[in-house]
Amino acid sequence: MPNSKDQVYGDHISERFNNELLELKTRFLEMGGMVEAQVGSAVQALTANDSVLAEQVRVGDRGVDQMEIGIDEEAILIIARRQPAARDLRLVIAVIKMVVDLERVGDEAKKIAKQALKLEEEGQTSLGYVEIRHIGSHVHAMLHDSLDAFARLDAEQALRVMKEDKRVDEEYQAAARTLLTYMMEDTRNISRCMSIMWVLRALERVGDHACNIAENVIFMVKGEDVRHTSMEETERVVGR
Amino acid sequence: MPNSKDQVYGDHISERFNNELLELKTRFLEMGGMVEAQVGSAVQALTANDSVLAEQVRVGDRGVDQMEIGIDEEAILIIARRQPAARDLRLVIAVIKMVVDLERVGDEAKKIAKQALKLEEEGQTSLGYVEIRHIGSHVHAMLHDSLDAFARLDAEQALRVMKEDKRVDEEYQAAARTLLTYMMEDTRNISRCMSIMWVLRALERVGDHACNIAENVIFMVKGEDVRHTSMEETERVVGR
Repeated sequence: MPNSKDQVYGDHISERFNNELLELKTRFLEMGGMVEAQVGSAVQALTANDSVLAEQVRVGDRGVDQMEIGIDEEAILIIARRQPAARDLRLVIAVIKMVVDLERVGDEAKKIAKQALKLEEEGQTSLGYVEIRHIGSHVHAMLHDSLDAFARLDAEQALRVMKEDKRVDEEYQAAARTLLTYMMEDTRNISRCMSIMWVLRALERVGDHACNIAENVIFMVKGEDVRHTSMEETERVVGR
Repeated sequence: MPNSKDQVYGDHISERFNNELLELKTRFLEMGGMVEAQVGSAVQALTANDSVLAEQVRVGDRGVDQMEIGIDEEAILIIARRQPAARDLRLVIAVIKMVVDLERVGDEAKKIAKQALKLEEEGQTSLGYVEIRHIGSHVHAMLHDSLDAFARLDAEQALRVMKEDKRVDEEYQAAARTLLTYMMEDTRNISRCMSIMWVLRALERVGDHACNIAENVIFMVKGEDVRHTSMEETERVVGR
């Protein structure tokens, strides 16, 4: 998907190198789309008690894993053959790191699908589904926006994703307190609530991975590592 | 820490390059030692109700984060300046990936320390401490052994670490069942048991990260990606 920003990568002696970098980006975004769909389907499977869809997510994770290995191999080959420098090297290194995040998001989707199957077996009550839908759609959007920031090399969008993380954490804390109340009210809720807790935790982790991707986008575009820095400092880096 | 295996890296035109790779390995192992200590201290702080130690772990995580950034910069510089190939490139790429794992282990230690502070405030009962000590010492050993496998480039030791993961998962499942029973017996246990559950989950994650490091060691030594492959296939790769 060439656009104006990709022109920056266009200034190479080797046309083939340029194509390899574009191919790497495209495959990464394909994997991103796949993982995004996995998260959406996992939440859908759980809240609709749809065990067929949950099973699809569980099996689909293998495809995500295979993509991780393929992209990784391609990235390492590019480094070995083309010896990229500066911005190109940052792109390749960022992809190597971000595929790990995508693969982990895939794992979280699989975990959610497993809980969906467990909950479906235990019978129908929608306790905790409101919370899962709410946080689920929030982190799904964060993941989508972080991939979009990568596609467009948009550091400001990446920053917006990072700012959402605090809100997700607050939503998660509130949901956890609600579930604790359900558990105390009736011990028969405990097992079910524990499953919901694991799902919420998995979703919160999806948000964390979206932030990691966003940090890598800022690193690619600005050349600065904004991990473990304050939001103010990150804003300063992005604003430059 | 030069040893016979490091001689493999000795066959370089540039002595400086060789030193840079050794320096990278040494710094990575330093970070590993730091993170190992953080995990040990976090478990100790929790099970001994030692809030001073817990606070030290919490603050100490910043040092881990700083090391991550420093090692990453060094690794990227080596790629840009030295254009390593084959085994050297695999070493540098593996370090870039493994520092992420070490940093996450540091985060898990910090989470455990936070739960230690929370539990200490809530008062003294040792419910769940046996399980935490047990799984804690198991994953601590796995982390240590994975770093040792890296230091000695020992694929067989890496394989042994990976085999331990299944046992940790079993221990974790058993502990989770025990805690569920405590919660159902007396609702006053719920809040405390939830804290213990988070700690157990954090420890289980430490074991996962140790496995990731082990996978990278096999990749470095054997040149093959053993992620998402069966244990039989991994054994075959290591045995070659």
